[in-house]
Amino acid sequence: MTTVSIIGGSGYGGGEALRLLLDHPKVEVNQVTSRSHMGEFVYQVHPNLRKRTQLKFSDLSQLEPVDILFLAQPHGEAQQHIEEYVKVTSRIVDLAADFRLHDADVYEKWYGEKHVAPDWLSKFVYGLPELHRAELATANYVSGVGCNATAGNLALLPLIKADLIEREVPILIEIKVGSSEGGAEGNSGSHHPERASVIRTFSPFGHRHTAEVTQEMGVTKVSLTMTSVDLVRGVLATAHAQVKAGVTTKDLWKAYRSVSNENPFLRIVKEQRGIYRVPEPKILAGSNYADLGFELDESNGHVVSMCAIDNLMKGAAGSAVQCMNLMMGWDETLGLEFAGLHPV
Amino acid sequence: MTTVSIIGGSGYGGGEALRLLLDHPKVEVNQVTSRSHMGEFVYQVHPNLRKRTQLKFSDLSQLEPVDILFLAQPHGEAQQHIEEYVKVTSRIVDLAADFRLHDADVYEKWYGEKHVAPDWLSKFVYGLPELHRAELATANYVSGVGCNATAGNLALLPLIKADLIEREVPILIEIKVGSSEGGAEGNSGSHHPERASVIRTFSPFGHRHTAEVTQEMGVTKVSLTMTSVDLVRGVLATAHAQVKAGVTTKDLWKAYRSVSNENPFLRIVKEQRGIYRVPEPKILAGSNYADLGFELDESNGHVVSMCAIDNLMKGAAGSAVQCMNLMMGWDETLGLEFAGLHPV
Amino acid sequence: MTTVSIIGGSGYGGGEALRLLLDHPKVEVNQVTSRSHMGEFVYQVHPNLRKRTQLKFSDLSQLEPVDILFLAQPHGEAQQHIEEYVKVTSRIVDLAADFRLHDADVYEKWYGEKHVAPDWLSKFVYGLPELHRAELATANYVSGVGCNATAGNLALLPLIKADLIEREVPILIEIKVGSSEGGAEGNSGSHHPERASVIRTFSPFGHRHTAEVTQEMGVTKVSLTMTSVDLVRGVLATAHAQVKAGVTTKDLWKAYRSVSNENPFLRIVKEQRGIYRVPEPKILAGSNYADLGFELDESNGHVVSMCAIDNLMKGAAGSAVQCMNLMMGWDETLGLEFAGLHPV
Amino acid sequence: MTTVSIIGGSGYGGGEALRLLLDHPKVEVNQVTSRSHMGEFVYQVHPNLRKRTQLKFSDLSQLEPVDILFLAQPHGEAQQHIEEYVKVTSRIVDLAADFRLHDADVYEKWYGEKHVAPDWLSKFVYGLPELHRAELATANYVSGVGCNATAGNLALLPLIKADLIEREVPILIEIKVGSSEGGAEGNSGSHHPERASVIRTFSPFGHRHTAEVTQEMGVTKVSLTMTSVDLVRGVLATAHAQVKAGVTTKDLWKAYRSVSNENPFLRIVKEQRGIYRVPEPKILAGSNYADLGFELDESNGHVVSMCAIDNLMKGAAGSAVQCMNLMMGWDETLGLEFAGLHPV
Repeated sequence: MTTVSIIGGSGYGGGEALRLLLDHPKVEVNQVTSRSHMGEFVYQVHPNLRKRTQLKFSDLSQLEPVDILFLAQPHGEAQQHIEEYVKVTSRIVDLAADFRLHDADVYEKWYGEKHVAPDWLSKFVYGLPELHRAELATANYVSGVGCNATAGNLALLPLIKADLIEREVPILIEIKVGSSEGGAEGNSGSHHPERASVIRTFSPFGHRHTAEVTQEMGVTKVSLTMTSVDLVRGVLATAHAQVKAGVTTKDLWKAYRSVSNENPFLRIVKEQRGIYRVPEPKILAGSNYADLGFELDESNGHVVSMCAIDNLMKGAAGSAVQCMNLMMGWDETLGLEFAGLHPV
Repeated sequence: MTTVSIIGGSGYGGGEALRLLLDHPKVEVNQVTSRSHMGEFVYQVHPNLRKRTQLKFSDLSQLEPVDILFLAQPHGEAQQHIEEYVKVTSRIVDLAADFRLHDADVYEKWYGEKHVAPDWLSKFVYGLPELHRAELATANYVSGVGCNATAGNLALLPLIKADLIEREVPILIEIKVGSSEGGAEGNSGSHHPERASVIRTFSPFGHRHTAEVTQEMGVTKVSLTMTSVDLVRGVLATAHAQVKAGVTTKDLWKAYRSVSNENPFLRIVKEQRGIYRVPEPKILAGSNYADLGFELDESNGHVVSMCAIDNLMKGAAGSAVQCMNLMMGWDETLGLEFAGLHPV
Repeated sequence: MTTVSIIGGSGYGGGEALRLLLDHPKVEVNQVTSRSHMGEFVYQVHPNLRKRTQLKFSDLSQLEPVDILFLAQPHGEAQQHIEEYVKVTSRIVDLAADFRLHDADVYEKWYGEKHVAPDWLSKFVYGLPELHRAELATANYVSGVGCNATAGNLALLPLIKADLIEREVPILIEIKVGSSEGGAEGNSGSHHPERASVIRTFSPFGHRHTAEVTQEMGVTKVSLTMTSVDLVRGVLATAHAQVKAGVTTKDLWKAYRSVSNENPFLRIVKEQRGIYRVPEPKILAGSNYADLGFELDESNGHVVSMCAIDNLMKGAAGSAVQCMNLMMGWDETLGLEFAGLHPV
Repeated sequence: MTTVSIIGGSGYGGGEALRLLLDHPKVEVNQVTSRSHMGEFVYQVHPNLRKRTQLKFSDLSQLEPVDILFLAQPHGEAQQHIEEYVKVTSRIVDLAADFRLHDADVYEKWYGEKHVAPDWLSKFVYGLPELHRAELATANYVSGVGCNATAGNLALLPLIKADLIEREVPILIEIKVGSSEGGAEGNSGSHHPERASVIRTFSPFGHRHTAEVTQEMGVTKVSLTMTSVDLVRGVLATAHAQVKAGVTTKDLWKAYRSVSNENPFLRIVKEQRGIYRVPEPKILAGSNYADLGFELDESNGHVVSMCAIDNLMKGAAGSAVQCMNLMMGWDETLGLEFAGLHPV
């Protein structure tokens, strides 16, 4: 068995990675660290893991050599400790934002502080298999993906890949998100009486994940508008763009079918009947699918492309495990088979 | 006391109008009709009205002369019966879509059928006081407003009135809505297990209320994208537009302050601290306020303007009562004083 | 105008009292204090009050003489400062738990600490008008009511008043509550991702409010079981008791009708058709009604009595304002006319 | 591979069984029937199954011979067609209520109609493995379990098995349920604006599942009180009983540990710290666990026992698949490994 340890396993992303890795047929979880919950059983923090593991959270200082290290710390930690981590492992999958951007200046612009390990930026492959499957197969270091960036990138992927949209016309990506995106640490705004039933546009533009869309899609005129809604897990990105002259719905079908065929976790949802005609995050909780849909207003070229994901799965731990599978030469879908629930 | 009757009082808009009118100091409710609930106490359908009224739903055929008639029927009914209605009253406030659009061709384009009483279209004033206060003061016939159109129109109002945006650049209005918008009649998609927790972009463009934005704001390049979220009452419109060259945040503040000062139910929500920094529909349930907010990206002129309302109040019955107040020369805010709740 | 000040106005109970008092036709709000939000506009904390008041939170040390003082502090504060408060006012309405219990020993038993102002316990009238209307008319000091105790007490009131149940058979009161009951200060369990969708029996028995049921209903064999559910405002008490031999459904109807007739805010909800056949808190948000229902299993004498309230209204600020009205000789319902919403 | 067909696969129970069976390593799904969705892809009704199967719903009349037949029809259907079903299969797992009760008179009492295949009642084993593991190993016909009955039975199991409670003292089981329990067919009360945020005690006593508790636990003085809350999947039973004189918390721990040790899907949740100290259904969505907790008031012998389950898993399809595993001599947990999610 391949051994894996998780640093920062008491958060939501780390907890989800832990759940997946505990059930993964090829790996064995060695250690899970947590500063705030050290010494507690992991099931005391992640109650779904009761009767699944007797692991306790250990201290980072007790880290032992391991085949693969998953990093699930708050942003900013990994870059400070990367040199220590590589002493105990040869393969890293990071879930945080530290190594997503390749350019240290871009990092500084969006995160408001200098990167402390800029030399490492080029050593990490951006961890979205739908974009970097081949590179991941030979990678040793894989970055995480921003959940909102992932919904945005996958909404744009068919359009960009088939070169169907005008890059000079601003792309607006309206993103609606659940509360788990904010992480396991609460704040005054996440207090249930204040957070329940919200439709809260907390960031009209300027969200940090924008940088990942720009980097990965090669588009500069793009903005993300973030709105919180009443849901725990889930992201829906609704992207608005302008198709090139002459592009038809048929062209779009071809482009979406192509990415769906090439990627086991991409699905097209575009039905004429029934309740579920468009991508919806609610049915994706726990699943690694990204559901794509689109609609073209042929009268003016306005295309609306949608992508729904579970922010903790395809938007975080699911993609991370998928990257691990690719790195190790295993079946890409291993340990990620859960279909999601209906109803839920 | 001025007498009022409501046709179609068992639906959500009619029920909300009934609640407001029962508590209104200047009016007395004579009759409330309902085809499906005839003979039942209104509190059996609207349980909040228990111990407030002993009225029963009566049949439309029993309609008696009255000072003001509120119409709250499903779309399409009012235009068929308008000639009968004007025999029993000299003043009509309609909540439905029948008399919102002034042009019969535009009506046919968006509603897919010929209007059966086109001569009446010009006799109705569009019932949004923020746009037509003066006309309403002398009107006899007032149309309803589309709830989504209202959120969109009020989001654009400061920008259009102060002439701050480029009308040739497409305006995208992303609208998130609660489930009461679909009306009191359920369908397979409104069944709770399917409707709970959704983020469902059910209409990427082409929503009928677009016609009201075009008519009232005078903008032709505009689209409404409709997304259902998990909430019962509430609409948030997030409008994206392009400001004219040189327009600054200061100009926007001036424009928004101006409409807020002129209109008792418009408020600006744009705070730097606290939980409620932007407009949010959740705190507006039962209130007639429309909360406005905005943000300008000065680097590229992208302005995001937000408007939150309660779809059954400012987006329907609240505006209707406000119009009645104006028609009758009463204080515009009469019967609409409820502030909304926090928390909720 | 009668002047009122509120101490502790940034919490949920104090905020709700403030909302009611601002709209009350007989009073004027002088001051609202808050330690944590001093200097802020009250609408920055209670966003529903924007455009309703320009009051700012002041410091407790700046307290000025006033006709009536509302106390809405965390439990334990009022008893420490009562001597100071009575220097600035002759009438106090407390929303907290400090002066609800008449017996200092009982207080110590349930609250785990000695009462620091035991002499004051006998000076306060328990602030539930349905139980103490006459005393309240001459009271100067009125205690608050526990929200859960109120739901329990009103569920039992018809049964106890008409002497219909066996007091030696244990009474079980199963109470389901929304998240606002926990107050405005969040904790790890109120973080939205953890608190959403819960059915969490956080206290199987031993809840402090039990003492208020025992004191007010005169029953000793009674337990409250507390379960949190996904709702912000609202409490439903489902009380199980044993009727005396021979008691019939007809007797129960008589008992419930009697209390409903005597109390403007009590309503019976017991319908054979429609959606709303039993008491439900959701339609009571913002209203001061307590809805009562019951069902008797005549085969074994098991009676189930239900009471639904809004915990911040009838269970806190609403009852407090109702008490003020009675103290001042005003109409009991003044300022409490809001009917609640449907749908919501 | 063992072949399985599902009759009535478009409902919630049938859909969940289908999901589990499609991923089950030992079986192959041959057919899924649905009257209302015949000819549609199953993923059009169960959107989580998109890209998992190309099966279409077929007509019941096309039923082919199969190793195991799952019945997931509305109540009343299976008893009418049982003779036909046994012609095509030798093994049946029913999810509906038709063959749960062994006594035709008891059936008639609770269901209000004569059973049409009473001879078959004794041929079915009640499908709760925690109660009938040995019998299931040799059974050919297995009944479904009522979801509420299952929560109640498992809450009582440790108490009854260790003979710790007084059977002459009435047992009250307060059950809180999500909306999926009502099935896939909506009604006026399941319309989202009416169903959202409810705390609705729709059945104070007399629920049909009571009969299953009486039959399986051997207790006659028991009542189930049913309350709907805002959740899609999940049941929490909070059972109140009286322990025998002298029974201590230590005795209870022993009894609960015993059933937890003997049953792979039973877990004890009774923590002194953390957020998840008691059983909660929200973390069980999609999992087959039943989480048990308890608290004893040693001053009076009042014991509160809790059981949380996912009504569609342990309360329906999960237990059904577990029964199939036992019937076939396979590992009891096969295909039921999903741990559930946190947060969710």
